[in-house]
Amino acid sequence: QTASTDSASVDIRHTSKGFQFTTPENRFQLQIAGRLQFRYAFPYDQNPLDFDDFEEPDQHLFKVNRARLKVGGHAYQPWLKYYFEYELGASRLLDFRVMVEKWPWLSFKAGQWKVEYTRERSISSGKQQMLERSLINRPFTIDRQQGVSVYGRIDEGGLLDFNYHFSILTGMGRETRHNDDKKLMYVGKVFWNFLGDGVAISGSDLKHQSKPQASIALAGATNTSPYTRFSSSGGGELAGYGSGAPGQYQVNQWVVETAFQYKSFSWQSEYHRKRINDNYGPNTGHLAGLYVQGGYILNHQDAAKGKPLFEIASRYVHYQPELSLPQNSEEEYTLAFNCFFNGHLNKLTADFTFFDFDEMSQNREANDWRVRVQYDFSF
Amino acid sequence: QTASTDSASVDIRHTSKGFQFTTPENRFQLQIAGRLQFRYAFPYDQNPLDFDDFEEPDQHLFKVNRARLKVGGHAYQPWLKYYFEYELGASRLLDFRVMVEKWPWLSFKAGQWKVEYTRERSISSGKQQMLERSLINRPFTIDRQQGVSVYGRIDEGGLLDFNYHFSILTGMGRETRHNDDKKLMYVGKVFWNFLGDGVAISGSDLKHQSKPQASIALAGATNTSPYTRFSSSGGGELAGYGSGAPGQYQVNQWVVETAFQYKSFSWQSEYHRKRINDNYGPNTGHLAGLYVQGGYILNHQDAAKGKPLFEIASRYVHYQPELSLPQNSEEEYTLAFNCFFNGHLNKLTADFTFFDFDEMSQNREANDWRVRVQYDFSF
Amino acid sequence: QTASTDSASVDIRHTSKGFQFTTPENRFQLQIAGRLQFRYAFPYDQNPLDFDDFEEPDQHLFKVNRARLKVGGHAYQPWLKYYFEYELGASRLLDFRVMVEKWPWLSFKAGQWKVEYTRERSISSGKQQMLERSLINRPFTIDRQQGVSVYGRIDEGGLLDFNYHFSILTGMGRETRHNDDKKLMYVGKVFWNFLGDGVAISGSDLKHQSKPQASIALAGATNTSPYTRFSSSGGGELAGYGSGAPGQYQVNQWVVETAFQYKSFSWQSEYHRKRINDNYGPNTGHLAGLYVQGGYILNHQDAAKGKPLFEIASRYVHYQPELSLPQNSEEEYTLAFNCFFNGHLNKLTADFTFFDFDEMSQNREANDWRVRVQYDFSF
Repeated sequence: QTASTDSASVDIRHTSKGFQFTTPENRFQLQIAGRLQFRYAFPYDQNPLDFDDFEEPDQHLFKVNRARLKVGGHAYQPWLKYYFEYELGASRLLDFRVMVEKWPWLSFKAGQWKVEYTRERSISSGKQQMLERSLINRPFTIDRQQGVSVYGRIDEGGLLDFNYHFSILTGMGRETRHNDDKKLMYVGKVFWNFLGDGVAISGSDLKHQSKPQASIALAGATNTSPYTRFSSSGGGELAGYGSGAPGQYQVNQWVVETAFQYKSFSWQSEYHRKRINDNYGPNTGHLAGLYVQGGYILNHQDAAKGKPLFEIASRYVHYQPELSLPQNSEEEYTLAFNCFFNGHLNKLTADFTFFDFDEMSQNREANDWRVRVQYDFSF
Repeated sequence: QTASTDSASVDIRHTSKGFQFTTPENRFQLQIAGRLQFRYAFPYDQNPLDFDDFEEPDQHLFKVNRARLKVGGHAYQPWLKYYFEYELGASRLLDFRVMVEKWPWLSFKAGQWKVEYTRERSISSGKQQMLERSLINRPFTIDRQQGVSVYGRIDEGGLLDFNYHFSILTGMGRETRHNDDKKLMYVGKVFWNFLGDGVAISGSDLKHQSKPQASIALAGATNTSPYTRFSSSGGGELAGYGSGAPGQYQVNQWVVETAFQYKSFSWQSEYHRKRINDNYGPNTGHLAGLYVQGGYILNHQDAAKGKPLFEIASRYVHYQPELSLPQNSEEEYTLAFNCFFNGHLNKLTADFTFFDFDEMSQNREANDWRVRVQYDFSF
Repeated sequence: QTASTDSASVDIRHTSKGFQFTTPENRFQLQIAGRLQFRYAFPYDQNPLDFDDFEEPDQHLFKVNRARLKVGGHAYQPWLKYYFEYELGASRLLDFRVMVEKWPWLSFKAGQWKVEYTRERSISSGKQQMLERSLINRPFTIDRQQGVSVYGRIDEGGLLDFNYHFSILTGMGRETRHNDDKKLMYVGKVFWNFLGDGVAISGSDLKHQSKPQASIALAGATNTSPYTRFSSSGGGELAGYGSGAPGQYQVNQWVVETAFQYKSFSWQSEYHRKRINDNYGPNTGHLAGLYVQGGYILNHQDAAKGKPLFEIASRYVHYQPELSLPQNSEEEYTLAFNCFFNGHLNKLTADFTFFDFDEMSQNREANDWRVRVQYDFSF
């Protein structure tokens, strides 16, 4: 049972996870941090979803894009961990999970979190290399779900050094209070760390890795629900799919991803496939998408002097909303510049994006430029 | 006036109320805690409300059922206390109150809180013996209200050892910004602690009380509002009552409750009556309900060894939605198992419930089983 | 890059901004505070907006009027500051801003905050002299906006001691995610501190200033948006203006304000003008308003003894909704009494208000009394 601990030696310090309080013998720990992401965009901020979006009037826009409160730590045992993250701007509980991490090869998690599926989505919005996630995040992400997970790392440091995650989830998205039917969502992911420790779930090689780090990962997911896509708003529908009834859409999807970091250079890619079956109608869908992304820190030697680091990075994205209409595609070309004052915790990012949408089945095409500047600040 | 206090001797420790910071001479104190309640349910989670609910398709469900941020302490004086509790999942302010507790026999409170009316509702959802409150909580609870209260304890340790609470409230439920008319809600409650200190507002005898503890309490409430029931969503209507106009429903209700704890055994019960008068129509209602509940810790001697404690508990509930239709009733039979890793602060609970609804006035009956598993974690 | 700081000497104390944690060399600082504002009102709380409001049935009302969580501090550098404030009752992010305050004469700010325009609105609702802002706050405030600002103080202590603020904002109000068009909001304000340091943005002379303090300020704003007014709910429309389309309303406005404090006496006033042009219709508006307000602490000598301070204060407000209809006006006469237990951080306020509305263009007049009592508590 819990008794009040002794005051004498509570350890307090500021870490990359904010102010941290730790009781003697590391029994209880609390970390409190916050983050502000402030953005300017022209002529719009959100990626275009369809051809109408290209016709919208231009805007100049300033906004607090993300405002996060983050609390984590452990209680009773160092291996009994918790974490919650709340979006103050939209008043949304994003994460709340409890983790049992007693054995590296066998950990457990329960709660709500970003299910381990794609690297792009798993990387915190505050640790991205680019200013924001790519065009294909929307159709393919599984986003946050509620459920349980088992995960761990096997053969650490060996040739068969794997990380694995297997999750069983309600499959109705963030903050839902019910399921539509008896069917659950199942998601699995395996990382093969064939060189060293694998690549951290964080963009940019800020450490100037002296040994090459690489990860190859394969993930798959299956779900039956009223939804064809998920976001931090919960479940929703892709273009062309009507609002779903319980059990209407059966979705199977997989992704292959790569990641690599070495001497200030970083690389990552994902290739996606997704099939949608409408259990109550003739609708079927087969979607594919990929991105490749790379960046380079220009002045790694300045890190030791406490000076800002500069990075240039680029991304190419190709999305096919329906493989049976192969002439239809959406492309994104993005160039980004980072100025890291204090790593990802205090940085300025600018990006320039060119969108090129082709819908030859309807004889339409459209393209456009966008510029954005973003300041990301954690405390 | 407030001046900055000296740093030298701020006391920091972890308590059952989370991390606690106290300035010298106990002038200011701040406690920060959080709680996650994670639940699995089949074939549904919420108690059925009517016969249609028994026909709903079965569900498997995982969800973050509660996600709380709790901040309390005192300021300026040890007896000037505050407390707020925020539900992060639903983005709702539950409690925010300031208390003047200078004299044990005369305390004052202002703000929003769970008005002292029923034991079941007053016990925090994290300190319940059963996995969740009973079937009769919904029709009879007064829930959270905004207003002022006077309360205290008289003849402490004597034969007439009483706790009392008297509250004057807006009577429109949680977070309302206005009243419907000039009429306020009045609620009174008296506990008679005829053995020792009375029973704490917390389920299960985790302390293996060596002396028997008992409380008998009587409470009553009267309110005129557009509502016939309250919940943490605010005001609402019981089945059979249309959406109310200002001043439409006059509700008078009372409850008798008992509580007892002794050597790992704990008991509690409530018997309710409630009358509803429709000031603008012929509708009247007369409702009655009761529950009895008991539990026993199987291995109290393991507490000293720091091992988990196991409890088996059971509850029977009988609800009559309308006393003038005496053949109509709703019953709940529940069996629960608790595994207390760290008391109520870190526990696993499973419950099995059998519902039996009879509406002989309509010649209908229905019954069903439900199983749930819940993990409750405070930090 | 950020590394974990040393625990040894983290400074902890309670200040007027709550509990404060500071790492060695003042590199990181975190302040956590909360505030509850509890209010009783009769026969209503909100100022009447039109003649119908005078006919509403009387109410007795208790409510948690404000419930704030405030977190501020600095990170990486003492001059890189942050602050956020969240309204727990309405689940609204009010402020979230990052400030670069390296040079007194040239500071920068980005985020969302109450744009520096009127003294009345800039003063925190917890530091007001009166119980609440005046009748003219609603038509003239610019409230919270998202954008960037440059500000500072020039010729400190000299004859030309000025504070200036210049802000470029999206101009769509609190928490908006987009702009309606390319046009932004521009707001400027200049304070001339012709005696000493100027008057702090806080009501009442609690310090019994031994030297007279005075500020004269001039501010102006221009914006094109769908809105004719702003509040903490975001953009909205004044009476007589329909829901706006993108770019519909062009609003230009200015204010002159004075403030003065000396030996327990405090004074402030504002005079406003505002022009509204409807770009899509013939609607135009020309509004004017003023308030004058004064107060006196009756027993300043008791501050040293730690006793409560008492203040009596009064305000007169005159509002002309349309200058071309000069017989139409709205007036407010308010008398307030403060009991400061611990300055603005723990105080009780009562106010009595008389409203007098004349709409001679429609041959209507109405007037009414209101009484309110408020307890404001910060921790």
